[in-house]
Amino acid sequence: MSPKITTELLKQLRQVMKSPKYVQEPVQAYIVPSGDAHQSEYIAPCDCRRAFISGFDGSAGTAIVTEQHAAMWTDGRYFLQAAHQMDNNWTLMKMGLKDTPTQEDWLVSVLPEGSKVGVDPFIIPADQWKRMSKALRSAGHDLVPVKENLIDTIWTDCPQRPCKPLITLDPSYTGVSWRDKIVALRSKMAERKVLWFVVTALDEVAWLFNLRGSDVEYNPVFFAYAVIGMNTIRLFIDGDRMMDPAVREHLQLDSTLEPEFKIQVMPYGSILSELQAVGAGLSPKEKVWLSDKASYALTEAIPKAYRYLTPYTPICIAKAVKNASETEGMRRAHIKDAVALCELFNWLEKEVPKGTVTEIIAADKAEEFRSQQKDFVELSFATISSTGPNGAIIHYKPVPETNRTLSVNEIYLLDSGAQYKDGTTDVTRTMHFGIPSAYEKECFTYVLKGHIAVSAAIFPNGTKGHLLDSFARSALWDCGLDYLHGTGHGVGSFLNVHEGPCGISYKTFADEPLEAGMIVSDEPGYYEDGSFGVRIENVVLVIPAETKYNFKNRGSLTFEPLTLVPIQTKMIDVNLLTQKECNWVNDYHQKCREVIGAELERQGRHEALRWLIQETEPLIRVQ
Amino acid sequence: MSPKITTELLKQLRQVMKSPKYVQEPVQAYIVPSGDAHQSEYIAPCDCRRAFISGFDGSAGTAIVTEQHAAMWTDGRYFLQAAHQMDNNWTLMKMGLKDTPTQEDWLVSVLPEGSKVGVDPFIIPADQWKRMSKALRSAGHDLVPVKENLIDTIWTDCPQRPCKPLITLDPSYTGVSWRDKIVALRSKMAERKVLWFVVTALDEVAWLFNLRGSDVEYNPVFFAYAVIGMNTIRLFIDGDRMMDPAVREHLQLDSTLEPEFKIQVMPYGSILSELQAVGAGLSPKEKVWLSDKASYALTEAIPKAYRYLTPYTPICIAKAVKNASETEGMRRAHIKDAVALCELFNWLEKEVPKGTVTEIIAADKAEEFRSQQKDFVELSFATISSTGPNGAIIHYKPVPETNRTLSVNEIYLLDSGAQYKDGTTDVTRTMHFGIPSAYEKECFTYVLKGHIAVSAAIFPNGTKGHLLDSFARSALWDCGLDYLHGTGHGVGSFLNVHEGPCGISYKTFADEPLEAGMIVSDEPGYYEDGSFGVRIENVVLVIPAETKYNFKNRGSLTFEPLTLVPIQTKMIDVNLLTQKECNWVNDYHQKCREVIGAELERQGRHEALRWLIQETEPLIRVQ
Repeated sequence: MSPKITTELLKQLRQVMKSPKYVQEPVQAYIVPSGDAHQSEYIAPCDCRRAFISGFDGSAGTAIVTEQHAAMWTDGRYFLQAAHQMDNNWTLMKMGLKDTPTQEDWLVSVLPEGSKVGVDPFIIPADQWKRMSKALRSAGHDLVPVKENLIDTIWTDCPQRPCKPLITLDPSYTGVSWRDKIVALRSKMAERKVLWFVVTALDEVAWLFNLRGSDVEYNPVFFAYAVIGMNTIRLFIDGDRMMDPAVREHLQLDSTLEPEFKIQVMPYGSILSELQAVGAGLSPKEKVWLSDKASYALTEAIPKAYRYLTPYTPICIAKAVKNASETEGMRRAHIKDAVALCELFNWLEKEVPKGTVTEIIAADKAEEFRSQQKDFVELSFATISSTGPNGAIIHYKPVPETNRTLSVNEIYLLDSGAQYKDGTTDVTRTMHFGIPSAYEKECFTYVLKGHIAVSAAIFPNGTKGHLLDSFARSALWDCGLDYLHGTGHGVGSFLNVHEGPCGISYKTFADEPLEAGMIVSDEPGYYEDGSFGVRIENVVLVIPAETKYNFKNRGSLTFEPLTLVPIQTKMIDVNLLTQKECNWVNDYHQKCREVIGAELERQGRHEALRWLIQETEPLIRVQ
Repeated sequence: MSPKITTELLKQLRQVMKSPKYVQEPVQAYIVPSGDAHQSEYIAPCDCRRAFISGFDGSAGTAIVTEQHAAMWTDGRYFLQAAHQMDNNWTLMKMGLKDTPTQEDWLVSVLPEGSKVGVDPFIIPADQWKRMSKALRSAGHDLVPVKENLIDTIWTDCPQRPCKPLITLDPSYTGVSWRDKIVALRSKMAERKVLWFVVTALDEVAWLFNLRGSDVEYNPVFFAYAVIGMNTIRLFIDGDRMMDPAVREHLQLDSTLEPEFKIQVMPYGSILSELQAVGAGLSPKEKVWLSDKASYALTEAIPKAYRYLTPYTPICIAKAVKNASETEGMRRAHIKDAVALCELFNWLEKEVPKGTVTEIIAADKAEEFRSQQKDFVELSFATISSTGPNGAIIHYKPVPETNRTLSVNEIYLLDSGAQYKDGTTDVTRTMHFGIPSAYEKECFTYVLKGHIAVSAAIFPNGTKGHLLDSFARSALWDCGLDYLHGTGHGVGSFLNVHEGPCGISYKTFADEPLEAGMIVSDEPGYYEDGSFGVRIENVVLVIPAETKYNFKNRGSLTFEPLTLVPIQTKMIDVNLLTQKECNWVNDYHQKCREVIGAELERQGRHEALRWLIQETEPLIRVQ
């Protein structure tokens, strides 16, 4: 992959940073955050402004351009990728390493006295604005909102904002109707004494109305905002999507409804002025609830005294705890997904030795098998199909320039998942199609031990996921190995594959406590730069656990794997496992055999079934 | 222990809360924080205002009194103690439990509209003021500074502020002279471009000047502030202590010195006006460095634009990493401390069966044996000598009303430590002098497994201690048991037994990364209310570890126990240990035999030596 040449673009950007046409006063620095106006992680092509200006297209990163410098902050998952994709105009700032300055500290160190730092107020979250503005002000600089996005002014072939049809989900999928969700939300609003709630995150709008879309690749969401009052519902959405009879029926737009459930549909672009009108009409003590990650522009629309900001919205928290219908849907989705992967791995075992399977072919084949399954919608993220050294690039995506051929001499890492109408999947398996080295097996086994330590962990009700992160690392740490990413993320139910407010990471502290019904990933790894990568990932459901003493009735929790795909036993050094770990693997494989075996049988996929049986032979540990 | 009757006191406090003599406008609530003007954890009797008003004298707690209510916030260590010591006027707010409101939320829920909440601005840390003030303001209330402390106005027999002689420490103890510490501090100030540094924490003043005091029981500190400029040193301290020739010599008060090392001695009470003068004389871009935990009063003395606030000061961070002289001193102190405990436990084994040893007698005996050791100064905290149900009161201190007699039928928990001129100790052992039940052994063994999991943990350089906390709980969690306190705290070198900025706790996230030379405690426990308590505590030194792959040269760390006191093998259910854990215990006991055995021999303490040999017999695990 060759880096994007950005010399000319940076020159143009630096010109508009001084142009009175776009800025009241010249800005000496311009910040290009990762997200869109909804602070989404996955964004539409028209919102890929940071990738446009820098070439780096990973899912997380912030670019800052000054008159002299251009710098990119990203985290451990993307150090290699960013270094490959950016030209020499850019300095890579490796977040999480000790000597890397924060964006604020770096700005203060490079800016001339009394500088102005510009940013699009719709793109920057209010909490980031606050922190950065404060740091800059205390060093004599100013953070200023630049209304027109400066990247858009130089991006001559910027794609249109998508506006695709919607999918309606009935309660057999969602468990709860949108009306009941509105009722629950209003009750949370009443508890906190707020009169209005502003829904800014795309997955929260989708979840609340039991609608899905395809405006953003991989995330079944659509561009919209909502403002919920105690007696009103306003949905801000563009296009003729509201003309679709199924959507009108679903939202009861043409029915005679109690006024408090009547949805007013308004243009997407009118959110700011409508919110300003709400803000202007408030009486003392009337509050508006927003996420503290909502954009600075929308947050500013509500006068400070009337804002009620929280890190997690009540929708975010309710969405994380899956109900029985959602859990059953997730189970079904994971069974179908496992069937597709058994087909894929069986096919790879036969084809890889021929030397004709590339990373891209393998990824396409995985998609092909998945698309044969019922209710398949799309992939849930860009398939990470990586062999040998590419496996060490944590969020690698094969492109023609990097596309390696799978072989019997290299480790193959496949991290992939799909959106089904009944659930979202995300699974990583690391395979060897020849004979792995002792060192590769050793690393794989430590990662497996970490995976099991989390999956089998028992912990008291109310424990936050970040307290489990070190369990995943302990076996690696004992030998002086580690990995530079968190261990797990929340997973949506036919929604975003990454969602809050829970997860398993050393990097967060403000995560919400785990509770039964939450779904997270468990995905420790190990990466040897230039050589190989190992990751073992299951999606797991938080369930009540049985313990001898049950935490004085506080209750016990543990995890149940929803992902049921064999873990390659060839890669395991059985002598490094304890008997308990060995039993875990055998029990897991027994369950794969039973559940996935039955489905393979039902679907008449006999060859894949034979592969499954062979891959789930019990491990035997020599005492 | 009977609760303090506070009806009359609360009545008086509520009167002064409305008295124009003390408050400009009546306050509807008054906050009584735990600390003193230096935000100390351990405080002088004259600063025990929260204990005076409520009766609850644990080391952590905040009282809030309104016209109708009186409430006390404290953490899991003190739930039982606070419940015992407070009368029915008080509501106990159990911090850390899910349904306990924060102080701010509670105030908002009980206060009438537009209330004023008063607090002594010298006692409340600036960061707490900020958080609370903001929360109250957003609910329409006001946090107001009340200059005169309202507790002091009703505390007619309040003791005098102590002003005891100082101890000077030469570099054979401290490793570094105070001049070199000032040089290092000024270099940190230059790095951050600050002109002044205000030392507000008592242990930081003591550490910086290589002085110790005894103004506060258990903590060898003295009441003082310091303000360090790039060319000036101001020490704010009262009494005739500066007349002591040893102190004058140590601080070179009468020598001809370069002006930048000349110490100006000023009255303790003049800090506010001096700081206000510094604040008034600042030019733009000149900054004053303060801890964000410094009092609101001192922080406000510096105009906001000139403040440089950090959670940890450079002194706090430098102090935590012990140099070779300090580490050697800590080793010596722990050897002496172990000798005293071997004597004590040998004595207890003989005396307990007679039924004449009470908790207080045992605590006194422990102090007696410690005081026989060289360079003994005082205890490092109130000895927790607790048997049977008292062991479940986590920070229990025996008093005549609660004093139980040790017996062969109950578990005995002793958490104790001392200040020696060469180091500070803190050790907990849990013993049974008869035959423990299977359940007691089971709980003890889980706690031991947690203790070993932390002590033997290997982790990459730069890991924060809070990431190790769950290791201590894993064995307990597996059976549905837990404990409601952190696993470890930083330990000073002949200084406070609790110090920042490192520790091992699920409750902190902003701790500084562990590095070689830091010293922390490792003290998991288990508490069965009304029945018994188990805790196993060693003080451990962070040291480099040898690992197979050494984290790609990032470096590996682990712990070395400084505490060398036998762990009672009678309490261990060997079958619950892994072979690795069993080896750890045996290796540890072998080291106790060698190091403490030699010292017992040298001191001619033959009976205690025999006890040590007998208690350190290797465990044998049936495979």
